[in-house]
Amino acid sequence: MMTGAAMQDDVRISPVHLKAVAGPGQPEPSPELEELYRGFERERLVPLWTEIGDLMPRHPRSKASAHVWRWSRLKALAAEAGRIVPVGRGGERRAIALANPSLGGRPFATPTLWAAIQYLMPGENAPEHRHTQHAFRFVVEGEGVWTVVNGDPVRMSRGDFLPQAGWNWHAHHNAASQPMAWIDGLDIPFAYYTESQFFEHGRDRIAAVEQTTPERSRAERLWGHPGLRPLSQPDAPAASPLLAYRWTDTDRALSDQFALEAEGHAATVSPGHAAVRFTNPSNGRDVMPTIRAEMHRLRAGASNRVAREVGSSVFQVFDGTGTVTVGERSWSVERGDLFVVPSWVPFSATASSEAALDLFRFADAPIFEALHAHRAQLDE
Amino acid sequence: MMTGAAMQDDVRISPVHLKAVAGPGQPEPSPELEELYRGFERERLVPLWTEIGDLMPRHPRSKASAHVWRWSRLKALAAEAGRIVPVGRGGERRAIALANPSLGGRPFATPTLWAAIQYLMPGENAPEHRHTQHAFRFVVEGEGVWTVVNGDPVRMSRGDFLPQAGWNWHAHHNAASQPMAWIDGLDIPFAYYTESQFFEHGRDRIAAVEQTTPERSRAERLWGHPGLRPLSQPDAPAASPLLAYRWTDTDRALSDQFALEAEGHAATVSPGHAAVRFTNPSNGRDVMPTIRAEMHRLRAGASNRVAREVGSSVFQVFDGTGTVTVGERSWSVERGDLFVVPSWVPFSATASSEAALDLFRFADAPIFEALHAHRAQLDE
Amino acid sequence: MMTGAAMQDDVRISPVHLKAVAGPGQPEPSPELEELYRGFERERLVPLWTEIGDLMPRHPRSKASAHVWRWSRLKALAAEAGRIVPVGRGGERRAIALANPSLGGRPFATPTLWAAIQYLMPGENAPEHRHTQHAFRFVVEGEGVWTVVNGDPVRMSRGDFLPQAGWNWHAHHNAASQPMAWIDGLDIPFAYYTESQFFEHGRDRIAAVEQTTPERSRAERLWGHPGLRPLSQPDAPAASPLLAYRWTDTDRALSDQFALEAEGHAATVSPGHAAVRFTNPSNGRDVMPTIRAEMHRLRAGASNRVAREVGSSVFQVFDGTGTVTVGERSWSVERGDLFVVPSWVPFSATASSEAALDLFRFADAPIFEALHAHRAQLDE
Amino acid sequence: MMTGAAMQDDVRISPVHLKAVAGPGQPEPSPELEELYRGFERERLVPLWTEIGDLMPRHPRSKASAHVWRWSRLKALAAEAGRIVPVGRGGERRAIALANPSLGGRPFATPTLWAAIQYLMPGENAPEHRHTQHAFRFVVEGEGVWTVVNGDPVRMSRGDFLPQAGWNWHAHHNAASQPMAWIDGLDIPFAYYTESQFFEHGRDRIAAVEQTTPERSRAERLWGHPGLRPLSQPDAPAASPLLAYRWTDTDRALSDQFALEAEGHAATVSPGHAAVRFTNPSNGRDVMPTIRAEMHRLRAGASNRVAREVGSSVFQVFDGTGTVTVGERSWSVERGDLFVVPSWVPFSATASSEAALDLFRFADAPIFEALHAHRAQLDE
Repeated sequence: MMTGAAMQDDVRISPVHLKAVAGPGQPEPSPELEELYRGFERERLVPLWTEIGDLMPRHPRSKASAHVWRWSRLKALAAEAGRIVPVGRGGERRAIALANPSLGGRPFATPTLWAAIQYLMPGENAPEHRHTQHAFRFVVEGEGVWTVVNGDPVRMSRGDFLPQAGWNWHAHHNAASQPMAWIDGLDIPFAYYTESQFFEHGRDRIAAVEQTTPERSRAERLWGHPGLRPLSQPDAPAASPLLAYRWTDTDRALSDQFALEAEGHAATVSPGHAAVRFTNPSNGRDVMPTIRAEMHRLRAGASNRVAREVGSSVFQVFDGTGTVTVGERSWSVERGDLFVVPSWVPFSATASSEAALDLFRFADAPIFEALHAHRAQLDE
Repeated sequence: MMTGAAMQDDVRISPVHLKAVAGPGQPEPSPELEELYRGFERERLVPLWTEIGDLMPRHPRSKASAHVWRWSRLKALAAEAGRIVPVGRGGERRAIALANPSLGGRPFATPTLWAAIQYLMPGENAPEHRHTQHAFRFVVEGEGVWTVVNGDPVRMSRGDFLPQAGWNWHAHHNAASQPMAWIDGLDIPFAYYTESQFFEHGRDRIAAVEQTTPERSRAERLWGHPGLRPLSQPDAPAASPLLAYRWTDTDRALSDQFALEAEGHAATVSPGHAAVRFTNPSNGRDVMPTIRAEMHRLRAGASNRVAREVGSSVFQVFDGTGTVTVGERSWSVERGDLFVVPSWVPFSATASSEAALDLFRFADAPIFEALHAHRAQLDE
Repeated sequence: MMTGAAMQDDVRISPVHLKAVAGPGQPEPSPELEELYRGFERERLVPLWTEIGDLMPRHPRSKASAHVWRWSRLKALAAEAGRIVPVGRGGERRAIALANPSLGGRPFATPTLWAAIQYLMPGENAPEHRHTQHAFRFVVEGEGVWTVVNGDPVRMSRGDFLPQAGWNWHAHHNAASQPMAWIDGLDIPFAYYTESQFFEHGRDRIAAVEQTTPERSRAERLWGHPGLRPLSQPDAPAASPLLAYRWTDTDRALSDQFALEAEGHAATVSPGHAAVRFTNPSNGRDVMPTIRAEMHRLRAGASNRVAREVGSSVFQVFDGTGTVTVGERSWSVERGDLFVVPSWVPFSATASSEAALDLFRFADAPIFEALHAHRAQLDE
Repeated sequence: MMTGAAMQDDVRISPVHLKAVAGPGQPEPSPELEELYRGFERERLVPLWTEIGDLMPRHPRSKASAHVWRWSRLKALAAEAGRIVPVGRGGERRAIALANPSLGGRPFATPTLWAAIQYLMPGENAPEHRHTQHAFRFVVEGEGVWTVVNGDPVRMSRGDFLPQAGWNWHAHHNAASQPMAWIDGLDIPFAYYTESQFFEHGRDRIAAVEQTTPERSRAERLWGHPGLRPLSQPDAPAASPLLAYRWTDTDRALSDQFALEAEGHAATVSPGHAAVRFTNPSNGRDVMPTIRAEMHRLRAGASNRVAREVGSSVFQVFDGTGTVTVGERSWSVERGDLFVVPSWVPFSATASSEAALDLFRFADAPIFEALHAHRAQLDE
């Protein structure tokens, strides 16, 4: 039904083409080697010795590129889509995804992560559905949209982080007189490669009572009190039951870290670098089983320590300007710009001398931690 | 250095080609839509609405095919490779991998699992290395090779399951006067897609003292006693410290289940279907963080219950003959034959009326369980 | 050095006195049975058959009594102690403990829990020490004292819950011109019976810089933001790193639950009964490994459901008046009154018709949950 | 109904007697202090300052004594009890417990652990019951009794360790023509102090089919295969599902450790000291949530390293002779002798020069580990 127009499809029933090539670690080309390789092809076999360099590198060598997407251009294209592409059942969302230039045209920001700008016109509704892929919204600017999760309307405003764990019903409606844009993050590529996705349509239109616009969601009223757990909710769900992490809280937490640092206490990651992780209040772990989400703040003129880790990240500049370096590449960035850090590529950022640089980050690290495959190192 | 001759590489820096096509859930084709799509291409963007059917199906629709590989043909090709392809540093192993016909020619049995026949000539040595990919050996026939793991020689004989958890040094040497073949299972495709691999060369030749051929490995002497833990090893490693699960134990456990069933006690999975899982004795969990391994036995004439689950499996017939059904496909199978069951495809097997059917299975289920994404269902 | 004046000591080197008594399940008294019992005595032996009824009852039959202590009388005695008993090294704290009437005169509120009123005069300092027993403070009235935990001054005010996990250095100083009283809860009896206590003296007087009186502690600035974890603190400590749970948060959480209930959503434990548990934000579990702490609110005129559970609890009335029933006993209670609920004794409370009843509770339930020995049941 | 004849009951409703005594850390005796103490008594209060030395020592100072019980005398008294004390409902078991000389005459080997000799005459049956207290049997000599657990008859023979986790139905029957004695270990004192016990009677006589005498229990046939888990049992029970750990396995595991040590590999706890822990094969943890059980072997002439730890242990000499030192006390011990090591008291043992010394040990350490309260140290 869907066209998959952009996808460079590698799914096909095709014979394997093996060529005997001289080289270190390779058998000497010969007619009988060619004959052996023809036998491999017939039987759908491939030897390790021709593939090992690609499959088993000394350390991760990502298929993804470091790349930056400019918010101004994304925003303009999304606005144009808002004008001419309707939202409704089938297409489901007016979401436009970052397609890493070296991932074959697929809408994958990294090999495991999806990042998209979503755009909703005044009065529009995105129909209800649910899927096992974990998702979140992050709002770099604007307000006026409510996400309705299992019937609970959740306000979306600048700086808010809104997790949307797998298999929860959700819809969006724009209650304002302005369009609104935000980013969606999901583990779509991971679920795609590992083939673990389920999806269901819900109601085409949510009830009127769910289209109200409360300041605080029910989830926040139940779970949004620091260290306090409602006794009516004894279990620890695998993903966060708290549906909104508000900017006022995040901002205050980062400011507190800098204040503590100034008073001489260990509170920041490194001098000039404050950071918080969004966590599941029921178990203190990452907000969702496959996605880590954090907010980082670099003091004006400060840098973080150059580090690399297994797994990939997507960043969005929330505030300020600065320079980011991903492996060999460097860019000046400003509010809304998005960029990716592939697996095991060193990353650092420096805030401009005028103001702090706030970076929102999401990453696939929980996957590797759950499987005891995570590694990280500081480069200096 | 390595050629990657067989790989249909999807890693390229290429523009995205988006085509406006009419259809349900798609915007009406128009010049301005075409223009929008050109903008998406320039900015490395892909909309959700053209891709959602492929990325977010109602349930997993695997890119992999159900497929069977015949042991007799694998064995013959491996023997020929034994004759003309040397084993040594660079190629590392004379391993020939199953390439699922619909995974683009890659040496991937399923989207997450690697399965290969490995072949070692009399007196040959495979050089030492280590990698973060988890591996195991399973021996459908033959004997005479010892795998040396961190200096501990481990005998390999018919029916033995030999885990080789990530980042352990290992080499193989054939101490017999006959060639020997066995299968290797690894999580190479999973590590490839998620980009989490590390690899190191060890010694080109292990020491003479490590080339001894003890009946029992040190690991078995420390960890191979039921329910008994050596006090000198207080920690619970993420992967099994027991380096060999012997056929005599496995066989007896399965026989015991059938005997208990005959006496009227709940011991089998279903009538006529006995099964054990190879587990890490230090924590009772799967033998390795990403790989589940099991031995199943169907009584003569018996079938297992038709079931499907998230994630993929590779089976090898260890003994007996029978019929296996994977989705729409069915095959008669015999000793050594290998076949794959893709994600969410129903599977069942029936033993011939003459003898029990023993099936070795390995699967990626621990990945999904760790991430709270596992689902399974019985189909009847 | 200490006198242990109140303790009815059962520690003595004494022979066992066994008497043959006729009865169900008992052997017939006879001279040779008497002779056998004399042999048991000589060899320090006791048969099961004479003791089983006491040791292995059908369900817990607590040695502790249900009992109430009146705040007005505690407060008056504590004030008198403030006048004539100095605070200093050796006695360590001006703490006066509830001694359950049927626990042999020991200062144990229940077989596992200690509860005391602590009292500090204006300008007084309680010297620094640390111990493995877990502790907390709860403030039913007053303010002006700061607890200094590992050098971090923590304000204490009405309604605040202040955990003091084992092995943290702590001292108290009263910075106000009024005396202040609060309650201490600890697992002293549990540690006493199981013999797992360590204790160390710290400085007799903390530094001037630690005697400041900040509104918020460093712990709150690091950990007091809902769902946000400081990246500089990657580990999950066994006990809460958050040193104060403020009344404004607790009160709001309870009010939110009632508001949600009024809107028709599941948020309260039962109609008219809101409750929160104080949890460790790093793992979502109980605030300390051996102590559960909660705040319950009953709407005016409402009752909780009659329930019993393994393990004991101590309650303090934080606000309102009402009636509490513990097994066969019932009392009218008001602000500050303390009472105990022994193991497996049914408990219920009813708020007066004029106002809500707020009950602070602490309990030993985490011990039983950790050991898989917890049971609870509703009695209706 | 039961007499509790031996118990020095500390449960009584009595006033507290507080005496003002001069001393370090104590307030100056005076009439008004006496008056304050009278007020404390009336209100059932006890100050911390008179009790802190006993309740909060620098490190555990056990109420229990180091003590040894001689097997020959226990055996003789048990045989005499076999002659004159019947086994049946009410008394339940002919079990005679070690009563630590300084625990007030209670049948408690240590403050948390019960150890008893149980004795069954030929043809006798001990009636079925179940209780939440965790139990085990250990057989220092003899054979002929089967324990029937949930209908599964389990053979008992010299050297076997037989866990009996809480809330399983169990009975014993002696199928031999000789009496049999063994030891029972339970957490009765722990459950008594913490008040968490449940108990139920089962059938007075088990069915004939349960009185068979199979060589292997059903539990062993399901769970007794190293590293192999029956697929029909997916869950990990909190206590071991394996009902017998056979001496042949334990003995071989210990011999293997010494052989590995002799070959130069790390396998023993320290030179000459081999040891295994009995573990739950479903999770690799201690065999029961509250009880650790181990077998230690000291090579002829060898000693273990002097160590102390939080919590108490009971040892029984399984084989050999030697010297054991518990704090200030030392004893020569031989087969069957039992002794206790109280909390935080240093312990060491030395095998005689003629033969290895095998020591069975059980301890309450899992309680402290679960509560993050465990500590241990080597003394030299």
